[in-house]
Amino acid sequence: MSITAEAKTIRDGAFGNAVELVCRECGTTRELGPHYACHECFGPLEIKYDFPAITREQIEAGPANIWRYKALLPVPDDIELSPNLEPGYTRLLKANNLAAELGLKNLWVKDDSTNPTNSFKDRVVACALSAAREFHSKVFACPSTGNLANAVAAAGARAGIRTVVFIPSNLETPKVINSAVYTENLVAVDGNYDDVNKLASEIAGEEDGWAFVNVNVRPFYAEGSKTLGYEIAEQLGWRLPDQIVIPVASGSQLTKVHKAFQELIKLGLVEDKPYKVFGAQATGCSPVSEAFREGWDVVRPQKPDTIAKSLAIGNPADGIYVLDICRETGGAVADITDDEVRDAIVLLARTEGIFTETAGGTTIGVLKKLVETGVLDTELETVVINTGHGLKTLDAVADLVRPAATIAPTYDAFVAAGIA
Amino acid sequence: MSITAEAKTIRDGAFGNAVELVCRECGTTRELGPHYACHECFGPLEIKYDFPAITREQIEAGPANIWRYKALLPVPDDIELSPNLEPGYTRLLKANNLAAELGLKNLWVKDDSTNPTNSFKDRVVACALSAAREFHSKVFACPSTGNLANAVAAAGARAGIRTVVFIPSNLETPKVINSAVYTENLVAVDGNYDDVNKLASEIAGEEDGWAFVNVNVRPFYAEGSKTLGYEIAEQLGWRLPDQIVIPVASGSQLTKVHKAFQELIKLGLVEDKPYKVFGAQATGCSPVSEAFREGWDVVRPQKPDTIAKSLAIGNPADGIYVLDICRETGGAVADITDDEVRDAIVLLARTEGIFTETAGGTTIGVLKKLVETGVLDTELETVVINTGHGLKTLDAVADLVRPAATIAPTYDAFVAAGIA
Repeated sequence: MSITAEAKTIRDGAFGNAVELVCRECGTTRELGPHYACHECFGPLEIKYDFPAITREQIEAGPANIWRYKALLPVPDDIELSPNLEPGYTRLLKANNLAAELGLKNLWVKDDSTNPTNSFKDRVVACALSAAREFHSKVFACPSTGNLANAVAAAGARAGIRTVVFIPSNLETPKVINSAVYTENLVAVDGNYDDVNKLASEIAGEEDGWAFVNVNVRPFYAEGSKTLGYEIAEQLGWRLPDQIVIPVASGSQLTKVHKAFQELIKLGLVEDKPYKVFGAQATGCSPVSEAFREGWDVVRPQKPDTIAKSLAIGNPADGIYVLDICRETGGAVADITDDEVRDAIVLLARTEGIFTETAGGTTIGVLKKLVETGVLDTELETVVINTGHGLKTLDAVADLVRPAATIAPTYDAFVAAGIA
Repeated sequence: MSITAEAKTIRDGAFGNAVELVCRECGTTRELGPHYACHECFGPLEIKYDFPAITREQIEAGPANIWRYKALLPVPDDIELSPNLEPGYTRLLKANNLAAELGLKNLWVKDDSTNPTNSFKDRVVACALSAAREFHSKVFACPSTGNLANAVAAAGARAGIRTVVFIPSNLETPKVINSAVYTENLVAVDGNYDDVNKLASEIAGEEDGWAFVNVNVRPFYAEGSKTLGYEIAEQLGWRLPDQIVIPVASGSQLTKVHKAFQELIKLGLVEDKPYKVFGAQATGCSPVSEAFREGWDVVRPQKPDTIAKSLAIGNPADGIYVLDICRETGGAVADITDDEVRDAIVLLARTEGIFTETAGGTTIGVLKKLVETGVLDTELETVVINTGHGLKTLDAVADLVRPAATIAPTYDAFVAAGIA
């Protein structure tokens, strides 16, 4: 079955400056379409572009969202006219308090928790939505346990496209509400996330006109993460940082930020310079960190057991590319325990006023560990990415933070409590 | 006692183009300082400015946050150099789906749920923080049950100023966590919100160097809401809407959006034109709506009983000014039931992919009611403000939204469920 509803053609310019799909493994190319695996070697397909000259001024004249980079994405030139969540262009905050706490000289936090549905997933879903539209898909769908479900359900509602979102049936009520509020078609599946994922792939294969964002439109979807890299460079004043720390789930985000930096260099939008890329995992699901530490060329799957559920992919699709990039650039991949994740969430909140979810706690905690173990150069300019909001994983810190005192409603009680 | 730590002077330019405080009731003026009540008549003090020429180009060259309007706020010209949450410049979304649902021709949603701590309070707190800094305050504080507590605790953490946040001791755990994560000094008070508020005023009077954002730096704090008005006008292409619907708690936000529109007209930044201002309340706390309906010149206090807790101010300080503005501009104030609030939250999520809290549900629901009762002109361009995020009031819709089906993890079960 095909993702494209029958008897419809794809319009000229549907994918902007993208020209074809290319296999990351064997280099075989294929026309742009709803394909995600190479028909020669089953390797992952990536988008290839033929960029015209693109200037900083053109980008700066764009809107305060990811579409300012539309010329660098597989989307049409009129993308702003199609209703979407308008994600991105989130804050890059100079984090002097956290830097002082960790002993770093120059640190920035790229905070993606303020996206429309409070995670970086709004970026990738916006690109997947554009592809689904151009393919005339009837249904916009995904399997997910959290952030992706929110992003797909919300983006589909605004776009007026039918959404179907699949979740494990044992998900906590707050997470169910946070997706069900946007869609009539939230489907609970009796099974774990792997079961839900497998079912999604089966439906993608059987049903006509279904766009599963992270399955059959994945090459388009994944490109959305490049915008994190573009924004960091632009917000630093059109230059690249020396070091960047990025969480690793499937590994896609890390590879795409690196791709974005390389594109900016090739287009002459930033000066060419070395930078080191670091990956962050939770020990309870650290297959890439393990491979890095052991010096392996392959990533051995693990069975996830960590509170950082949005990073809990035991067999990460882009794991080996993460290894390559971190090794080539002189970076590293490291992991921390769940207790360190919790402590890092509180550390970021208390120093910079940013409440991150467990994935962000993992990234901040790994940053801390990389400093303490001397892997990160404390003199160099460093960026760390916060990918999601703590409101979604409140339980993680429920036992750590509480009122300092409970007092009677009188000034005397206040004074006696020693808060003044 | 004074808010200003002793033996410190206020620097030149500490408050930008603000020149003095003026009583809203009797017009008595006073020098800029940590004062909030007129020493002649106890009326509320407001900031008065002497604006130079300010151009659209100057504003557009500023950052993508509220500081692009710094020349219009009581903040110093170097405000961007002081660590703050960098709130504002949130999305103004064309809401065609919601418009079609309600029978409106031209509708926009100003979505403040994507602010740093997910409500418009980050705007006012950022202005209060600047004032607290310029007054050399030692402590940054507030009484609150929710959004304000989050915003103060987070902003203070990032600014490196000591925060003390007072909450009722019976607050739900998620709300406690969402503030406690940012501050070591969350103080639970055995009493209701009125008790907490009274205690805060007492401490403000007794202690030296405490800046309570909504008490003794309130005139500076309140100015932050003007940025909502500036952004709406700029994002519409430097023009004013015909109709605007705004939630009413203390009433401050509505009066400040109106003030912002008037300033833009006087400065020649937008064309002068008529616009109608509408206020939204929940029936369970609708003192201003009641006064509007009854034709009263005064607002009679009510005892709040509504799920829209962030709007539940029974004796709103700016209630009579809201009445004046809505009457003068040809607008209205209306209220809806808690069930209508819940339905409106789901309506907004399903049509535009925006998950709002109960305050936003109130505003959307009142918009709907104003259309249905013929009070709002469906042909005119209308803006509605969403002030906060649904993740903070999940319980409100817990019984309304749920999975459509629970199925076994097989394609056959999926087909049998009739979702395809």
